[in-house]
Amino acid sequence: MNGYTGKILRVDLSTSTFQVEEPKEDFYRRHLGGTGFVTYFLLKELKPGIDPLGPDNKLIFATGPLTGVPVSGTGRNSVAAKSPLTGGLGNAEVGGFWCAEVKFAGFDAIIIEGKANSPVYLWIQDGKVEIKDAAHLWGKPTKEVQDILKQTYGPGSRVCQIGPAGERLARIACIVNDLNHAAGRCGMGAVMGSKNLRAIVVRGHQKFPYARDADTLALIRRLIPELKANRTSQYFHTMGTAGVVKSLQTASGLPTRNFQEGQFEGAEQISGEWMNKTILKSHRGCFACTIRCKPEVAVGDPYHVIPEYGGPEYETIGSFGSNCGIDSLPAIAQANQMCAANGLDTIAAGVTIAFAMECFERGILTESDTGGIKLKFGNADAMLQMLENIISRKGLGDILAEGTARAAKKIGKGAEAYAIHIKGQEVPMHEPRFKAGLGIGYAISHTGADHCHNIHDSAYTTRTGAAMQAMGVLEPLPSGELSPAKVRMLLYGSLWQHVLDSLVFCQFVPLSSDNLVDLMRAVTGWNTNIFELTKTGERAVTMARVFNNREGLGKTDDYLPKRFLTPFVSGPLKGLAPTEAQVRECIDLYYSMMGWDNNGVPSRAKLEELGIGWVAGV
Amino acid sequence: MNGYTGKILRVDLSTSTFQVEEPKEDFYRRHLGGTGFVTYFLLKELKPGIDPLGPDNKLIFATGPLTGVPVSGTGRNSVAAKSPLTGGLGNAEVGGFWCAEVKFAGFDAIIIEGKANSPVYLWIQDGKVEIKDAAHLWGKPTKEVQDILKQTYGPGSRVCQIGPAGERLARIACIVNDLNHAAGRCGMGAVMGSKNLRAIVVRGHQKFPYARDADTLALIRRLIPELKANRTSQYFHTMGTAGVVKSLQTASGLPTRNFQEGQFEGAEQISGEWMNKTILKSHRGCFACTIRCKPEVAVGDPYHVIPEYGGPEYETIGSFGSNCGIDSLPAIAQANQMCAANGLDTIAAGVTIAFAMECFERGILTESDTGGIKLKFGNADAMLQMLENIISRKGLGDILAEGTARAAKKIGKGAEAYAIHIKGQEVPMHEPRFKAGLGIGYAISHTGADHCHNIHDSAYTTRTGAAMQAMGVLEPLPSGELSPAKVRMLLYGSLWQHVLDSLVFCQFVPLSSDNLVDLMRAVTGWNTNIFELTKTGERAVTMARVFNNREGLGKTDDYLPKRFLTPFVSGPLKGLAPTEAQVRECIDLYYSMMGWDNNGVPSRAKLEELGIGWVAGV
Repeated sequence: MNGYTGKILRVDLSTSTFQVEEPKEDFYRRHLGGTGFVTYFLLKELKPGIDPLGPDNKLIFATGPLTGVPVSGTGRNSVAAKSPLTGGLGNAEVGGFWCAEVKFAGFDAIIIEGKANSPVYLWIQDGKVEIKDAAHLWGKPTKEVQDILKQTYGPGSRVCQIGPAGERLARIACIVNDLNHAAGRCGMGAVMGSKNLRAIVVRGHQKFPYARDADTLALIRRLIPELKANRTSQYFHTMGTAGVVKSLQTASGLPTRNFQEGQFEGAEQISGEWMNKTILKSHRGCFACTIRCKPEVAVGDPYHVIPEYGGPEYETIGSFGSNCGIDSLPAIAQANQMCAANGLDTIAAGVTIAFAMECFERGILTESDTGGIKLKFGNADAMLQMLENIISRKGLGDILAEGTARAAKKIGKGAEAYAIHIKGQEVPMHEPRFKAGLGIGYAISHTGADHCHNIHDSAYTTRTGAAMQAMGVLEPLPSGELSPAKVRMLLYGSLWQHVLDSLVFCQFVPLSSDNLVDLMRAVTGWNTNIFELTKTGERAVTMARVFNNREGLGKTDDYLPKRFLTPFVSGPLKGLAPTEAQVRECIDLYYSMMGWDNNGVPSRAKLEELGIGWVAGV
Repeated sequence: MNGYTGKILRVDLSTSTFQVEEPKEDFYRRHLGGTGFVTYFLLKELKPGIDPLGPDNKLIFATGPLTGVPVSGTGRNSVAAKSPLTGGLGNAEVGGFWCAEVKFAGFDAIIIEGKANSPVYLWIQDGKVEIKDAAHLWGKPTKEVQDILKQTYGPGSRVCQIGPAGERLARIACIVNDLNHAAGRCGMGAVMGSKNLRAIVVRGHQKFPYARDADTLALIRRLIPELKANRTSQYFHTMGTAGVVKSLQTASGLPTRNFQEGQFEGAEQISGEWMNKTILKSHRGCFACTIRCKPEVAVGDPYHVIPEYGGPEYETIGSFGSNCGIDSLPAIAQANQMCAANGLDTIAAGVTIAFAMECFERGILTESDTGGIKLKFGNADAMLQMLENIISRKGLGDILAEGTARAAKKIGKGAEAYAIHIKGQEVPMHEPRFKAGLGIGYAISHTGADHCHNIHDSAYTTRTGAAMQAMGVLEPLPSGELSPAKVRMLLYGSLWQHVLDSLVFCQFVPLSSDNLVDLMRAVTGWNTNIFELTKTGERAVTMARVFNNREGLGKTDDYLPKRFLTPFVSGPLKGLAPTEAQVRECIDLYYSMMGWDNNGVPSRAKLEELGIGWVAGV
């Protein structure tokens, strides 16, 4: 072989040293990048049982072989570490411009080890690395920090950072690229904070060579107009992700009042259409993307929302909006900005507040707990005040900053019944009673309730249908139903999603799997194909499972919260919910399809079949 | 979808009726054709426990979606039924011109049911079918029969038939296309004989449409010169399969004297080079093939070998030559012709005679058993006399016509130790002590010792290396060694081989998996790929396993004969043989990799994953 390889930067904050590694091409071909990389390094290098917020944890930023290729979908990276939320493998993907800049600076991945004695940031430029004092940045909102760093290193430099929430080790803290792109899930921001690392500033001027330069450029020239003309692209360009609010509302798939309902009477006012008509200023995209699905909004008094922090996307609208019973887009936009400025995961923050609201309404929490805040569903001011308390870790906010699972345990009095999480990670804005297959995916996912590493189960939509047909799933399957065929689709979809996450390629960009293969061939020089790539995805899923097993997560951690086993009392899905036995059967079937035993432990044969027999010994 | 479909002809010889079925496109896409088809129909339609030579068996001839496409490799079909040799699924592939003619006559497959009261043959022309009296053909050699039929139906008609051996229900009888192409393995000739069906004559003038006509033609135009220029093609064109004799001799992989040794002192005289210098007249190919790997030879006194019957290929040279200790190519050519004229599998016949020779040398058989024949290794006359007796079922020949396994049981006196078969099927000319991975494949294969449904294990030869790399097996693996990685390669190789056998595409034609996918896309209109195709291969393997399990074949039937666990006493492989425990471990690993349980029974999850959950209920 004579194809794709790269460099990995390893920084030890405890010793203020770094080194550059150059894995062989075989390694790249087996693990690709992104999710594939991080599962490899975390499984291989982390000692079992370490404290996620201690110096033994490693925080990995990984790009993929396509990152920085100038076509839509390539502006992403993975972030990973042992998760302080789940105790298992933490992994989040994020877009923006920072990721491509890392590649241009000469690196595929950055592995952060140890812990700095005092706040620092990294400055990486074209292969050179400096560890710098961050005392002047600590405690400041993200925009202020980015402004300072860009002033220091020039407007072309790109900043990835945590905010004050991460500094304060909120387990629901995220990592932010370029102010409005968040690696939200799994509490990665707390890990970065625990290392006293506030930011990584990057500037790169290196052109990385494509294995087949002419092929790559010709392909890109062909793909760009195709992507622009594509209806899915145009939909995301016009509506962003917020466009789904209304159709989910119709289907009873819009999480409402802490997942108690699937329809929200205020749906219209939090819809993408409403946002377009009211607070939207413009759209923003990631590196090289022509879709530009991310909103920029502005809101005046009583709020103060500026376009630089972007605007609320669907998950944020759901979690702070319908799920908190709030129909005010301006208030949601304000919450979104607070999360971006302070580095909080909007899903986790919204769901945690919704949880607290339900506790309040049920009398488990009172005004004496909330510091006088009337934390009722629909009370936008209360939501924003509690969010501020989470950020500043004040009163009940200090408890909620740990996420629903830990908060519920601390609150007691039966609060755990209202903590809607899996493995400690808050459930995102996709209702398992509607998207039944995704519910099984939530239950099994190594990152807990996570919509990013699974296929959404409304099969044969424009996006998922083609990918599934390419994998031989020829029959459309209705939403809201569980069946062996659904489990199979979930399985294949999840494997393919892990390919995308390893590349690291955006799931919103409607590139066919064929085109993706062509792009991979041109860029890497490997004569790869859907079979080999899918096996790479399977390798990542399997290694993540082994990691979690090693950390003590097993069969009993794969479940769906009871709330989703209870049917809605009204609406189009009235009376419809899977039983616990059905869920268990689907999970067992999934295990078996994956070559895992009854306890969800990958068999030695499966490891050998994936060419990772060494994993049996970790 | 709006792609490939076709017609299946079902003939009931008991009632002299027929019907034409038109399965939906989904069915074609899930099962492709060839091996994929036959496993489906046999599993779905055969009653468990039926007599393979009774009227309840069904004999299926299946082409594939590529059959008849005018490019090398497409002139093949599968033949299948419950095997009278193994009691499991019988399945053999065969080349020639008959297969393409079936397609041109409007059919993808022909399913023969029941049993005719008296000898018949079928005449199929452009969708029309007639069942005709075959009294005048019965008992005649194949050439005579073909001459009569071509005189009746014109020189363009194509004949597939059994010979007198099949009429007499020899369990090692084969089915012959166009005089010199044999569906040799699994005793398919006996099944056809049991139905009183002597021949199927076909003539077709229908052009079948390609889903993407222009693409198909353009691709063919590109592929033909590429294939002609290919070194593997040129090698097979010049040497045929006989070219491997010398390299196998060097490696100690040339079965000698009933597999007692791996090197033969007379190898030079039975080599392809020797054949080219002495008896070769010309080469012949299959439909549309530019490689033309099949020899035509002529031999005079004391023999009488004519080119019309072709000439001995490697398997025949090995089985009648080195494995019988015979170094006379003319004698081997005579044996080959006798098999072609009478419809006997040359592998089974040669190995059975070698078995009898060893019994004779060890005193288990004597001249009184053989009717005075001095059945010693190296005695060419004795070999030919015994072959004649097998054909005419005379004396010991009557017993040997049942194959080694049954013959050994009948002979007793410890003869079974020298019967080199698996599941009742004679081991072909690939030495498991040299090709260690293939040995495991022999042990597991649903058709018993069968080299056609497995990858040959000398990895990273021109042929197998590229196919394996396309499936992500990046590391070359040495021959003669067993390892988990070897089992993985065997597994992937076997899955891909089942894709080829379902298409039905020749494994000798060096078309890359990419080109094959392109060809499939153009011909069928399906946006298929290596993943989907491999799953189709896996579906066929799994269904075949379920068929065999249902017939009572299980874990204990998956083994390697003790002879191959005993090292050679000399030569380059001296001292080298796998242990029984190693073989067992590899088999168990293979089961588990396939999603089969410890007893080799496919899990329900695997069936569901392959979209064939219904199979659990058969």
